Amino acid sequence: MKKTFDAVAHALPHIQALHAYVPGEQPQGAGWVKLNTNENPYPPAPGVAAAIAPEVDQLRLYPEPVSASLRSAIAQRFGLGAGNVIIGNGSDNLLDLIVRCFVSDPGVGHTVPSYSLYPVVAGMSGQQVVEVNFEREMQLDVRAMADTAAKVFFLTNPNAPTGVAFSLGEIEQALQAIDGLLVVDEAYVDFGGESAIPLLQAYENLIVVRTFSKSYALAGMRVGFALASEAVVALLDRVRDAYNLDRVAQAAALAAFEDVAYFDQQCQKIIATRENTRAALEERGWFTYPSAANFLFTEPRDAVGQAGPAVAASLFDHLKEGRVLVRYFPKHPLTCAFIRVSIGTDKEMQVFLTAVDAWLNNA
Amino acid sequence: MKKTFDAVAHALPHIQALHAYVPGEQPQGAGWVKLNTNENPYPPAPGVAAAIAPEVDQLRLYPEPVSASLRSAIAQRFGLGAGNVIIGNGSDNLLDLIVRCFVSDPGVGHTVPSYSLYPVVAGMSGQQVVEVNFEREMQLDVRAMADTAAKVFFLTNPNAPTGVAFSLGEIEQALQAIDGLLVVDEAYVDFGGESAIPLLQAYENLIVVRTFSKSYALAGMRVGFALASEAVVALLDRVRDAYNLDRVAQAAALAAFEDVAYFDQQCQKIIATRENTRAALEERGWFTYPSAANFLFTEPRDAVGQAGPAVAASLFDHLKEGRVLVRYFPKHPLTCAFIRVSIGTDKEMQVFLTAVDAWLNNA
Repeated sequence: MKKTFDAVAHALPHIQALHAYVPGEQPQGAGWVKLNTNENPYPPAPGVAAAIAPEVDQLRLYPEPVSASLRSAIAQRFGLGAGNVIIGNGSDNLLDLIVRCFVSDPGVGHTVPSYSLYPVVAGMSGQQVVEVNFEREMQLDVRAMADTAAKVFFLTNPNAPTGVAFSLGEIEQALQAIDGLLVVDEAYVDFGGESAIPLLQAYENLIVVRTFSKSYALAGMRVGFALASEAVVALLDRVRDAYNLDRVAQAAALAAFEDVAYFDQQCQKIIATRENTRAALEERGWFTYPSAANFLFTEPRDAVGQAGPAVAASLFDHLKEGRVLVRYFPKHPLTCAFIRVSIGTDKEMQVFLTAVDAWLNNA
Repeated sequence: MKKTFDAVAHALPHIQALHAYVPGEQPQGAGWVKLNTNENPYPPAPGVAAAIAPEVDQLRLYPEPVSASLRSAIAQRFGLGAGNVIIGNGSDNLLDLIVRCFVSDPGVGHTVPSYSLYPVVAGMSGQQVVEVNFEREMQLDVRAMADTAAKVFFLTNPNAPTGVAFSLGEIEQALQAIDGLLVVDEAYVDFGGESAIPLLQAYENLIVVRTFSKSYALAGMRVGFALASEAVVALLDRVRDAYNLDRVAQAAALAAFEDVAYFDQQCQKIIATRENTRAALEERGWFTYPSAANFLFTEPRDAVGQAGPAVAASLFDHLKEGRVLVRYFPKHPLTCAFIRVSIGTDKEMQVFLTAVDAWLNNA
């Protein structure tokens, strides 16, 4: 016998309508200057490899289910209790848990442009996804955020893809204005932003989300964490997969987290390279947002001083031909004339700038 | 200012009502004979450590997002296309994706007793979870399965916690009888079960789920896979986290999967140990289900020949005092007089049997 099954017709309507997240290109070959997904150009702390080795000898055994050592270390660093910390298989995992616990009508809010995963995880709830649009000045519109009445509002600070940081005062205004939960995604905060962690004591409607993918140089390992009230963490834990983090990831993240000196040094190096690169772009007359992140969002001008989508696309293509990969977001009026460049090593940024100048000279 | 937030009141009703999955105890100290979570007593294939090493040097970079190499290798082995395979962060991750894509009213079905995660992942849908109860004979009641009208039905084959295997004929009857998707969870199939993979060609309503945690000895690494029609896989991919598997996990699983000789040898060793252990239990007059898995479900009798919940609990406690950890499920009439014993090394099973005899002699 045979049996057909129309999978699409059997899928839930909001899944049928869902557009999957499109991650930045991850070329697997060598020879690329990869400035497209905000990875750290430096390796993780030297203790990471040593911490992984004993775990490799234990792979036949399940991991410790709650990542207890990592929760404790993080809690202690930030003056919180272990009950205020949850660990995710990447911070994306945590964004998803938040949606699954707390999102009902009228849905989820997020600013635009921002991390393009938000509408995807939000869309999985089957609820409305409400956008609050930035203007070119990238000011936070707290009133519009509150007007969404969203059950959960996602805000990246420093913001992506611009790198613009919001002040703690602005975050506090938002926490006061909204009725639902404010998720402050601090993926890039270690490169110069002001963390909302001190607001956790006073604001039970705050969740701070962090990742080990950027400042801790562990994008390949998939570890993130969230900080919130014990009640919020307990609910998120309820929907968390019981073994969401493998043995190697737990050990690697803990080792990276504990080497504070290395961490500080690498962040400072990236910040210095960022500021040099920004100066170089402005020398070329390119408007570039001030960045508190490990990337720059810049508006290229061609040899005759023109900016716009065609110019940005032309530069993107030229760079890619030369195996310099940056990110281009053509779909939004505030992003389509810009490119986003992750901060690599000084040498990589030099390769990038040389390719930029070649493009300018060829035009 | 301050702001309170009643997290529980803001959580979705079905999340408020959800009981989180309780994993088997994972003691972190040494000195345990750990026969409680069906881990493999032997290490993964010797090539795994070598495959991990180069990934540790690349941790700053995101992983390849779709685990393409692993999908291809698995597809090829089973005579399927890469579009028929999806990789999960453990098979638990895949069960969850299936629920999120396909479960609407009247909900999810599963047999009882079975893997206690099913009602948890099913409960996250907010839909009904319908149980089909086994009798002591552990026969599959295909009619009752169809009568649930479930959108998704979870069936473990070989079953847990009994180890009893269903025939391919029974699986095919179920596929014909039900209207929704049948998820055949083959976590333990490599220890003697009959796989439903050959039925994938004819039955588009079949999803086969496998794990690297048991037969591949990678419980600490969190890797599972599912095989289904291209249409089903495409939908599951839509809700899958874009980077659900880290670099190390992808490399480790591929290396383990490719060493077929080692895999076969280890499975055969475990099967031999299982049969010896089963014979030893039956010598003691204990009813023990025939098992096609890497565990035995046995009904202990005390020195005077009594069985029952108090006897099983007494043995469990006695074993635990002697640092021999098995699993006891006190909550269901068909499990409360039994213990489940994972198959360890011959030496570990000897320690277990010696502890059993000490308990018998002390009674």
